[in-house]
Amino acid sequence: MSVTIPDSHRDLVEAAGVGVLSTVGSDGLPQSTAVWYKVDGDVIRTSLHTARQKYRNLVAHPLATLFILDPTNPYRTLEIRADATFADDGDGSYFESVVRHYGQDPATFPAPKDNRVILTLTPKRVVANG
Amino acid sequence: MSVTIPDSHRDLVEAAGVGVLSTVGSDGLPQSTAVWYKVDGDVIRTSLHTARQKYRNLVAHPLATLFILDPTNPYRTLEIRADATFADDGDGSYFESVVRHYGQDPATFPAPKDNRVILTLTPKRVVANG
Repeated sequence: MSVTIPDSHRDLVEAAGVGVLSTVGSDGLPQSTAVWYKVDGDVIRTSLHTARQKYRNLVAHPLATLFILDPTNPYRTLEIRADATFADDGDGSYFESVVRHYGQDPATFPAPKDNRVILTLTPKRVVANG
Repeated sequence: MSVTIPDSHRDLVEAAGVGVLSTVGSDGLPQSTAVWYKVDGDVIRTSLHTARQKYRNLVAHPLATLFILDPTNPYRTLEIRADATFADDGDGSYFESVVRHYGQDPATFPAPKDNRVILTLTPKRVVANG
């Protein structure tokens, strides 16, 4: 049975907002970082650089949670606990699509375009509050 | 060696803001929730109800991460990866102090005052961005 994102909170994944992605390190400590993301049906995708700790965490422990606070009401939240899978983004085109979704120009955006993968988060449990 | 919260981001822990607390469940999935908190020197404290999943997660796996987004600049963030310890809050007085810190009246605040513990997060690693 697939787990869906409720219509009541779909605006939070469709807006170009900042989410909090949490992974688990080899020391058992959660790592949380701010991420950009895009929704595709009921899955969330984002672009990761393979030099980042969160990528190494996810290779070893492919479970992650995306948490979104409504910027206009911090008591309205969406938590997406998910399986993490990867696909190659050899030409950086997915990365560029995320940058464009956030209103930035990939040609001038100050982040490396190479060594990137597409992280897909497939929800296992979704908790919507507020 | 104790880990400190940098002066550059101390405003984020001193303001009565909403943080994202991530724990790890028995299934290995991170759980993230919005929390209120107070800082005391370099430790963070919050009040937890013992019926909540995050409390059960922390009893089994006493490591947690608090992540704070600056509400005026979502690219300015503070991540506090921490050891989690508990103390009793038998009379609910710590819970009431947190509620007051957030400008609410404990007498009318709609949350149970009993079965609460004080969670102390002692930083192991702090990452400040922006």
